[in-house]
Amino acid sequence: MTKQVRLGIIGLGGMGSGHARYLLEGKVPDIKLTAIADIAEARLEWARENLPPDIARFATGEALMESGLCDAVLIATPHYDHPPLSIAAMKHNLHVMCEKPAGVYTRQVREMNEWAEKSNVLFGVMFCVRTNPVYRKMHDIVQSGDIGSIKRTNWINTNWYRTQAYYDSGSWRATWDGEGGGVLLNQCPHNLDLWQWICGMPNKVQAFCHNGKWHDIEVEDDVTAYVEYPNGATGVFVACTADAPGTNRFEITLEWGKLVYEDDKLMQYKLAQNERDYCKSAPNGFGIPEMTVSEIAIEGEYTVHPGVMRAFAAAILGKGQLIADGREGIRSLLISNAMHLSSWLGRPVDLPFNEDLFLEELNKRRATSRLKESKTNKLPGEDIRSGMH
Amino acid sequence: MTKQVRLGIIGLGGMGSGHARYLLEGKVPDIKLTAIADIAEARLEWARENLPPDIARFATGEALMESGLCDAVLIATPHYDHPPLSIAAMKHNLHVMCEKPAGVYTRQVREMNEWAEKSNVLFGVMFCVRTNPVYRKMHDIVQSGDIGSIKRTNWINTNWYRTQAYYDSGSWRATWDGEGGGVLLNQCPHNLDLWQWICGMPNKVQAFCHNGKWHDIEVEDDVTAYVEYPNGATGVFVACTADAPGTNRFEITLEWGKLVYEDDKLMQYKLAQNERDYCKSAPNGFGIPEMTVSEIAIEGEYTVHPGVMRAFAAAILGKGQLIADGREGIRSLLISNAMHLSSWLGRPVDLPFNEDLFLEELNKRRATSRLKESKTNKLPGEDIRSGMH
Repeated sequence: MTKQVRLGIIGLGGMGSGHARYLLEGKVPDIKLTAIADIAEARLEWARENLPPDIARFATGEALMESGLCDAVLIATPHYDHPPLSIAAMKHNLHVMCEKPAGVYTRQVREMNEWAEKSNVLFGVMFCVRTNPVYRKMHDIVQSGDIGSIKRTNWINTNWYRTQAYYDSGSWRATWDGEGGGVLLNQCPHNLDLWQWICGMPNKVQAFCHNGKWHDIEVEDDVTAYVEYPNGATGVFVACTADAPGTNRFEITLEWGKLVYEDDKLMQYKLAQNERDYCKSAPNGFGIPEMTVSEIAIEGEYTVHPGVMRAFAAAILGKGQLIADGREGIRSLLISNAMHLSSWLGRPVDLPFNEDLFLEELNKRRATSRLKESKTNKLPGEDIRSGMH
Repeated sequence: MTKQVRLGIIGLGGMGSGHARYLLEGKVPDIKLTAIADIAEARLEWARENLPPDIARFATGEALMESGLCDAVLIATPHYDHPPLSIAAMKHNLHVMCEKPAGVYTRQVREMNEWAEKSNVLFGVMFCVRTNPVYRKMHDIVQSGDIGSIKRTNWINTNWYRTQAYYDSGSWRATWDGEGGGVLLNQCPHNLDLWQWICGMPNKVQAFCHNGKWHDIEVEDDVTAYVEYPNGATGVFVACTADAPGTNRFEITLEWGKLVYEDDKLMQYKLAQNERDYCKSAPNGFGIPEMTVSEIAIEGEYTVHPGVMRAFAAAILGKGQLIADGREGIRSLLISNAMHLSSWLGRPVDLPFNEDLFLEELNKRRATSRLKESKTNKLPGEDIRSGMH
């Protein structure tokens, strides 16, 4: 057996303890969990009682990094702590896997990337939904170019239902100061990442974010966004945490037809001819080119977090590639930042946008942010310094 | 048998000749077609050759109105002529059924309504898709209030594919001066009417219209619009004439669930509890109320134009009601005008909007409008003074 990667987990809330669980179950053979860190005494206590005794426990991320027990860290703290802890780890020449969102604003993530570059370590972001074979397939089909350029994208992404009790379960939840946003920062980073991974980055964004529309929270729980792409295509993204039942329907229109993913089915509508050519040459006014409709068979396993961690270990050991490089991690954040900014300004925002203006506007909101009284403090889940993202 | 309504058709292009056909086939027993009018000599010639000889032919709408041969008129001319001809008919105390759109700008339609009121005649708009039992059912379900208030509407309405040959088939087509707009004025009036008929009127609109994006035309062939409703709900409407295959998917999210119409199927997702109550009282953070999913059986016939004309005749004869009153005819136009205006101004528009500003902006575009060289001049279809809407 080759050498294992020694991993430390920083932040042992809902996500961090979940990561520990599958690692201890041996789901990532190339990784050995050697240490954990959490600033909450109660969670260290929980770790002492529930994790094997050979896993070292530290009260701070820095202490874990300095211990010499780790080759890599997995950072699963609240959002704002992702960048400083990641950068600190990079300075210790540790490889970093960071929970999403990589940061709350893009300037942070840019710095993370710069430090990853300087330190010559690997920097991955936990975009585990990229391991879903449906989205992999959509990515492959669209990025292959076989069915032409995109003309339109439309993702109704409203199946993120949350009750008021969810928001009341942690004082940091759904606050500008605790999370830096609402559904865009907590629930949708995966979807925004997949959207750009499959369809490419937009270059213009206008979003309509509604804060505390359905819940007693200060951040957005209802978003409709319109985007434009460099090739002229347009797109719509709708997200909400109060639609019951919600919808997850992702449609991509391309020159040779369309892809529609809904209800766990991926349908392909494939034309016999490029619509752009047909439009110009067809003698008739109505009708479309010949078309075949087929359900695309989805092969492969949805490996989720263990899949991302196996790829992370393989990349560290020089025998594979990351699922999502930190450089890509910035993209979903660019989109959500642009959505927030356009909504705050009430006008479309071009990408790249003014990052200083964004931060200024965000900080205005952080300044008046009210942390809620936490009504519950569960372990290892929904607590002030961590949580299930 | 009761007295029949004597009807004259003004405008004998694609639509007008189609109306004549089913009337002559006896599909509207209460109506007798007595006269037609068209300003094109060639089409009067066509009528002489193809219609029964007892149907009087006139070279102008005015002459038909003055003939005393009609109790009612059906106006099927190009868009800009709908209001003046309708008002002229009302002044002659003739009942009016007008093709959609009732006019190109709302001020016109407001005048039509005022004249209908003054003249004490019936004024209907040809919103024949309201006779589609699926949309009737959606209307009944939503308007009954049984599943609560609307929270979100989303209509992907892109199955309006048209080739360049279609646009080249009439010089008036897809011009500011000929039609007053593109997909919003020609293809979508039915959908915009149904949208508001089923879900109610929005009070804020921001559209992103793209002119000549996919075709060599001066008006919009690609539209994404975001709206807000008085109760705080939001909506999206997407229309295009270049998506092949297009999509017709209409989703309405309500407090007690959602309705989804796509692929000729209407699905209802019905919660056991109002989501608004559940959200506030549920002890858990995730999960939604119990739900039943069912396909709604669609009963009844889609009677289309004959259905609208049968209702029109019945209303005239005092034994029924119009499918769509002229007062409602203004609503879809209010929406499309607001979409155009918001796109021109690059900002959201509140309803009611400034109609003078709209007309000023429209007239700017009409002033530079270029009628195309008509490449074909078919009879009775795609011609300069009429056409299939």
